[in-house]
Amino acid sequence: MAESIYSKYPPDLSPAQQRFLVTTVKDWAIQNGLAVRPSPAIIPTVADSNGVLATNAPVTLFPSPFPRTCFEEATALQKIYNELYAAITCNEEWLKEIVEGLIEVDDFVSNLWKVHLDVQKEGYVQTLSLGLFRSDYMAHVLPTGVAALKQVEFNTISSSFGGLSALVRQMHTELLASPPVSPINYPPHPLLQSEIPPENTAVETLSAGLAAAHEAYGVSKSTPALPLCVLFVVQETERNVFDQHALSTQLKTVHNIPVFRVASVDVLDHTSIPSSNSSRPLFYHPPHSPDSTFEVTTIYLRAYYSPDEYKSSRDWLTRTHLERSAAIKCPTVLNQLSGCKKVQQVLAEPTGPDHLSSFLKGIDTAIVERVRGTFAPQYDLSVNSKGRDLALNPDTALNHVLKPQREGGGNNVYKSDIPDFLRSMPESDWRGWVLMELINPAPNAQNVALRNDGEVIRGNVISELGVYGTILWENTGKILHNEQGGYLLRTKGKEVNEGGVAAGFSSLDSVLLF
Amino acid sequence: MAESIYSKYPPDLSPAQQRFLVTTVKDWAIQNGLAVRPSPAIIPTVADSNGVLATNAPVTLFPSPFPRTCFEEATALQKIYNELYAAITCNEEWLKEIVEGLIEVDDFVSNLWKVHLDVQKEGYVQTLSLGLFRSDYMAHVLPTGVAALKQVEFNTISSSFGGLSALVRQMHTELLASPPVSPINYPPHPLLQSEIPPENTAVETLSAGLAAAHEAYGVSKSTPALPLCVLFVVQETERNVFDQHALSTQLKTVHNIPVFRVASVDVLDHTSIPSSNSSRPLFYHPPHSPDSTFEVTTIYLRAYYSPDEYKSSRDWLTRTHLERSAAIKCPTVLNQLSGCKKVQQVLAEPTGPDHLSSFLKGIDTAIVERVRGTFAPQYDLSVNSKGRDLALNPDTALNHVLKPQREGGGNNVYKSDIPDFLRSMPESDWRGWVLMELINPAPNAQNVALRNDGEVIRGNVISELGVYGTILWENTGKILHNEQGGYLLRTKGKEVNEGGVAAGFSSLDSVLLF
Repeated sequence: MAESIYSKYPPDLSPAQQRFLVTTVKDWAIQNGLAVRPSPAIIPTVADSNGVLATNAPVTLFPSPFPRTCFEEATALQKIYNELYAAITCNEEWLKEIVEGLIEVDDFVSNLWKVHLDVQKEGYVQTLSLGLFRSDYMAHVLPTGVAALKQVEFNTISSSFGGLSALVRQMHTELLASPPVSPINYPPHPLLQSEIPPENTAVETLSAGLAAAHEAYGVSKSTPALPLCVLFVVQETERNVFDQHALSTQLKTVHNIPVFRVASVDVLDHTSIPSSNSSRPLFYHPPHSPDSTFEVTTIYLRAYYSPDEYKSSRDWLTRTHLERSAAIKCPTVLNQLSGCKKVQQVLAEPTGPDHLSSFLKGIDTAIVERVRGTFAPQYDLSVNSKGRDLALNPDTALNHVLKPQREGGGNNVYKSDIPDFLRSMPESDWRGWVLMELINPAPNAQNVALRNDGEVIRGNVISELGVYGTILWENTGKILHNEQGGYLLRTKGKEVNEGGVAAGFSSLDSVLLF
Repeated sequence: MAESIYSKYPPDLSPAQQRFLVTTVKDWAIQNGLAVRPSPAIIPTVADSNGVLATNAPVTLFPSPFPRTCFEEATALQKIYNELYAAITCNEEWLKEIVEGLIEVDDFVSNLWKVHLDVQKEGYVQTLSLGLFRSDYMAHVLPTGVAALKQVEFNTISSSFGGLSALVRQMHTELLASPPVSPINYPPHPLLQSEIPPENTAVETLSAGLAAAHEAYGVSKSTPALPLCVLFVVQETERNVFDQHALSTQLKTVHNIPVFRVASVDVLDHTSIPSSNSSRPLFYHPPHSPDSTFEVTTIYLRAYYSPDEYKSSRDWLTRTHLERSAAIKCPTVLNQLSGCKKVQQVLAEPTGPDHLSSFLKGIDTAIVERVRGTFAPQYDLSVNSKGRDLALNPDTALNHVLKPQREGGGNNVYKSDIPDFLRSMPESDWRGWVLMELINPAPNAQNVALRNDGEVIRGNVISELGVYGTILWENTGKILHNEQGGYLLRTKGKEVNEGGVAAGFSSLDSVLLF
């Protein structure tokens, strides 16, 4: 079934059909804010010195087939995953052990941990944490041909594309039904005629999470009381702004909550914590309204997720400043650390203690096993470990990928390259790497992508499904809000002579379930 | 009252305030499709060979004050204006006399008339006509200081900006109320705190007009019956596409009507009229779906309004092809001709026969006089006419502007330049010109515009209010649908040392009534 679906999809396009679809998609994207600011590679900065230009986000012309059982399983498990990562974040002792094993190989983790220790020393003043998560998966084709859901990674900070992916779903849905009465936008194909992409409530779900935190913050901690707001902390040179605006618009228009944006480099200039107030409220001083001060209930980080964003000590100062404030952080430093690859590996390590069951105490064991079923086996490379055996044996290496533990820590190493790669470095560095069993996506999936420079590329693709969830919890473990909703399908071009996912194109997509 | 409003408006902006407003407006525009494709002056065509880039439409940062009485009068009279131009279009004899007076000075009018004569000879097969009109006005400041509504022109073809102007209204309204709870986007100003721009239903009104025509067309005139559609005929190099898409999206999603776009140069390739069918249905053959044929109920012209669009005989062939078909034209050639400046001048000529009352027979005379009250006096320059006296007398010339009768026929001549300008050409050419009493807009109105290249300009401005209306009628004069709704405020930079409106910037705006 899966094979035959992929082998005949998408239908061929005549030049006129492709021209029509591309024109329609290009215009639809700009009409509806499915847009990005163009990179300097598309338009040199000098040619757009006022930064007014925009282009379509990279998108597929067709929605991609995706196994219904995998989609439904990912959706069904998201609230459990939310709980899992909330529980991990609450267990500082457990996280400490993980982090201490990484300090020598990962500066970034080490510095984040220092922020936590500094604030812990002074004492945290906010007991609530907010997570806006995205769990990323592939549909792994088993030797039987059946597809199984396998997790690629779990994002606990700056989970992006919720805003734009909801728009891609809307675009594909409209294309499927257009023009009304006699739809002819796509060439005839059984899948295109029988299915529409499932509803995508990413914007509603993620905004409702932020709104729940804003509400839970309670009244102003200042005297006299200040107006309250949510603060988006963003990258100064962000090009994916419309994805973020989709959430802030929803917060403003549906939840009636003031939202401000501040670039991470400007945080110290435009926010303050009054030293006289032991509750440490975070004040936001809008530069465009010098007489106004707002109190920040919730900090939504769309910045500071990557090591290269911390350019100087001022950035670490900023992060600490935000962390010690009374605002609810989305995420806290601890919650960000819970999303590191090492945590995923320890949870997925088949040979170690059953951490998963410990964190999900109280959850039906059948459900815990379904969560475990989404893990691809992952191993560390410690002395005498199973991981080391699998990595060094040329036969078993063939079924694995070696990933750097560090964020932004280099490229993955695939299959037969693994043994020699490891032997080329001192064993003491091996702890910086994680071995993961390969996920095998459908080998003959295809799609057509419209890049944001307007180039059209047809080819073999690999699709990754991300499912969004949001959870608000107390550091005691008590959960105040836990919801799942919305998804992202990211479809990437595949280089056939390489074991893994490689560049070429990466597009926003939606799903047709089969 | 008016003086004091204009003299203190808009409030000053600090650099931080202006930066904030400009960033907010730039992003809002792209997020919501208040966009245009950039001109080659902004981005050379080679730098965007795939035509993916977009930029904000030129907009004002603030809504502009506009006298409430003038706005309400324009709105109240629109349905009468719709009837007036339907009645003029139905009176071929009367139009013929106008046109015959222009044939020697205006090739364009002459060629349009030939299209009508050709189709008349064969016999029209469609008795219905659709108008999507926009009546443009200024608020004329009388010596008493009171503002009076004065018409600048009446558009019977390709009335544009309905889609984008509704978005500008939405943007200004959101800016006024943002952030929710404690709005601080604009500096404090009494007008900004007490008023919001009136609702703008241009998209709903114009689309409902097209939908009414689609409905009135009835069943397919083909055997077997074909699916029906509306056809937008557009310019090949149109940059204002998102304005048009706002209407087609409304037609597709709200009215459930298939809509296609075809460039005027492609009309003969993608449409046909079967010679075997005396009803002359217009077939549309979508190039992207070779097996499909649609029957066009309604042709919406967003092209062929300007002489420079008729580059060869093929364009006139195309226009004739469309005109002779059974599709309802928006507009017909006769309806387009009714919008020529000469018609406006004859209606507004204070010394001639009372054409207005004749066309509005059956309408309350008080209302007819209100329509007449919106005319600025206009004159031809025939021998012994009042117009000739007013134009040649240096004293009276000071209160007038001389306009070319021909579409695209050159620049206006102002005030003291008029007598010498006329004497510099043979009297036989004077019939190509119309003398119009000057409209005096508020002299000290100001605003700040964000151009579509991102430049910000503050200065003195003149605002022109356009009011949209739509009417569907039979050539017997019977009216099937007549509605008013939505408006455009277009605000232009003013060169203070020049009598009239000059370039600099022209921006989409909305109104705050006072």
